[in-house]
Amino acid sequence: MVKKSMLAALLAMSMTVGSASAMSKPVTIKDQGSFLAGGTVVSAPGEYDGTKPANLDGETLHGDHAYVFYQKPVKAHKYGLVFLHGAGQSAKTWETTPDGRDGFQNIFLERGYSTYLVDQPRRGKAGRSTVPEKISATPDDQLWYNTFRIGQWPDYYENAQVPRDKESLDQFFRQMTPNTGAFNNEVIADAMAAVFEKSGDGVLVTHSQGGGPGWYTAIRTDKVRGIVAMEPGAFPFPEGEVPEVEATSSPFPAKGEAIPMKDFLKLTKIPIVVYYGDNIPSEPTDNWGQDNWRVRLNLARKWAAVINRYGGDATIVHLPEIGVYGNTHFLFADLNNVQIANLMEKWMKDKGLAK
Amino acid sequence: MVKKSMLAALLAMSMTVGSASAMSKPVTIKDQGSFLAGGTVVSAPGEYDGTKPANLDGETLHGDHAYVFYQKPVKAHKYGLVFLHGAGQSAKTWETTPDGRDGFQNIFLERGYSTYLVDQPRRGKAGRSTVPEKISATPDDQLWYNTFRIGQWPDYYENAQVPRDKESLDQFFRQMTPNTGAFNNEVIADAMAAVFEKSGDGVLVTHSQGGGPGWYTAIRTDKVRGIVAMEPGAFPFPEGEVPEVEATSSPFPAKGEAIPMKDFLKLTKIPIVVYYGDNIPSEPTDNWGQDNWRVRLNLARKWAAVINRYGGDATIVHLPEIGVYGNTHFLFADLNNVQIANLMEKWMKDKGLAK
Repeated sequence: MVKKSMLAALLAMSMTVGSASAMSKPVTIKDQGSFLAGGTVVSAPGEYDGTKPANLDGETLHGDHAYVFYQKPVKAHKYGLVFLHGAGQSAKTWETTPDGRDGFQNIFLERGYSTYLVDQPRRGKAGRSTVPEKISATPDDQLWYNTFRIGQWPDYYENAQVPRDKESLDQFFRQMTPNTGAFNNEVIADAMAAVFEKSGDGVLVTHSQGGGPGWYTAIRTDKVRGIVAMEPGAFPFPEGEVPEVEATSSPFPAKGEAIPMKDFLKLTKIPIVVYYGDNIPSEPTDNWGQDNWRVRLNLARKWAAVINRYGGDATIVHLPEIGVYGNTHFLFADLNNVQIANLMEKWMKDKGLAK
Repeated sequence: MVKKSMLAALLAMSMTVGSASAMSKPVTIKDQGSFLAGGTVVSAPGEYDGTKPANLDGETLHGDHAYVFYQKPVKAHKYGLVFLHGAGQSAKTWETTPDGRDGFQNIFLERGYSTYLVDQPRRGKAGRSTVPEKISATPDDQLWYNTFRIGQWPDYYENAQVPRDKESLDQFFRQMTPNTGAFNNEVIADAMAAVFEKSGDGVLVTHSQGGGPGWYTAIRTDKVRGIVAMEPGAFPFPEGEVPEVEATSSPFPAKGEAIPMKDFLKLTKIPIVVYYGDNIPSEPTDNWGQDNWRVRLNLARKWAAVINRYGGDATIVHLPEIGVYGNTHFLFADLNNVQIANLMEKWMKDKGLAK
């Protein structure tokens, strides 16, 4: 009897390991590929002279574009999903999770959605920048571990929806990839608008810092039919209506940005949902990794109130308030990411975006 | 009659345009995903203190890994293909061509091969480097245009197997992406060996500068069952057998690298094929973009002779010599890339690598 149950346990373990690196079901791809979108061209001064390779006078540089890898399953839904990562990340964010499960790329592909995974200008495969940059290679894994609310290093939050093994943490840290040029909302939003020209009408899914250029993308193009923002960090308000900056123990204050009313009003024309995870306290705390998100959740609520006051449709979902616990800043990769995908897809259905 | 043939012509045109952005046939994917492989961890001096976010003492940095996106079709061949890009490029090299056709990623996926597309350490989505770097954003498109044998800027070589439209050239230039840390053969080969630990036995396909670390990868792991090198630029010779450096008008001389005989002999245990394209002259020329490859092709021939003298199986294919004309440095993306894929697959079949 003991032997049999051990065998069953081993079998269950091996099945878990096996399925960890496999899609939950095969998917037939009608089309997939990649492209660069948007960007600019700059030129060196002087006149081009091709006879001397060391002379770069008058040469050009194509930079500040976005990189996109897309996949279209057979019988795809009408609207594709365009994914924009957060700070220090690339499109890898949405791919296989650190512990080898399906990320949102595969989950939504399996559900019949076309997916467009973006590396923003000056990041990842879209690294060619029109401005120079110094990469410091400063060790700061723990700064991000705390800011991303995995826990307080070296501890995990007790309910954190993350694997606890060393290899998964290693994979997580290695997802980071540096800027190859300064982060710039306008540069990113310009390129993202060009992405939507190629993808066609779709839903924009942003994470964290990507939320900022995400709003500006929707202001630039009406091909953004809805926005799902995962723990965005910045919000644009109409000029004159920017809230005061709240004090925080985080090194990254949450500041509203002032934009013209005519731009702001464009954000009232599409449905928007914003998700925040767990371990975000309601009162100020010296735990700066948590306090970073307390002030952002507060700002998000103020922002949604303004959007809705002007006739918009913005919903802020603080997951613990609907009984979903333990989510980190990477809710779409957490152990319960299928549950998060279900919530997101239900919202899309409710808003007519899952056609 | 005229009307009908015009209609037919228009229809044919629209079909061409349509198929340009589509796979040649749907593919059912059994599994796909991404992972980071290899790399190291460095630590800042001092003791970690989590109470002050601005204090980065004692923090860690995980860097120098490779990034891999893989896809496994149903009923896949036994050996997968692991693709390593060249200088200034990322895995984008192997994806959709600049004019929107299938690259080697899709071509071989459609033929039933599992594919592993690598961003090498300190490049693309594997940008996190353990060493600092300055990115200069120097305009140098024309340096690369000439070096890659598209033509002599602004002209195309008359027989160049590349599209002539502006948009394709724009896409081509935007594929470039900078180093985020110094190029290092050892760092890359270490990470590539870790990639093969995860991919299992397979065929390594390298391009250009990737050829160098490719040889060192095969020296590190016997999971590399064969190598296809597209216009490699560097070759390792046994100590004492490195040829003299040939004079060239190119700013990049072709130098053999000395390695221990016991390492060199490992390269004699697997089949190797090396392809070079067109517009590589046999005599020295002031056209430095062409001369760069004249000296490399010469070095490749000397290298293959040494490999074969020690019992190996290396074949150098200069494509015009077998009647294939007009190929640039990016032969796997050129207009005739299906023909190149056919040559490569036939070689794999001959060597028992297409099982």
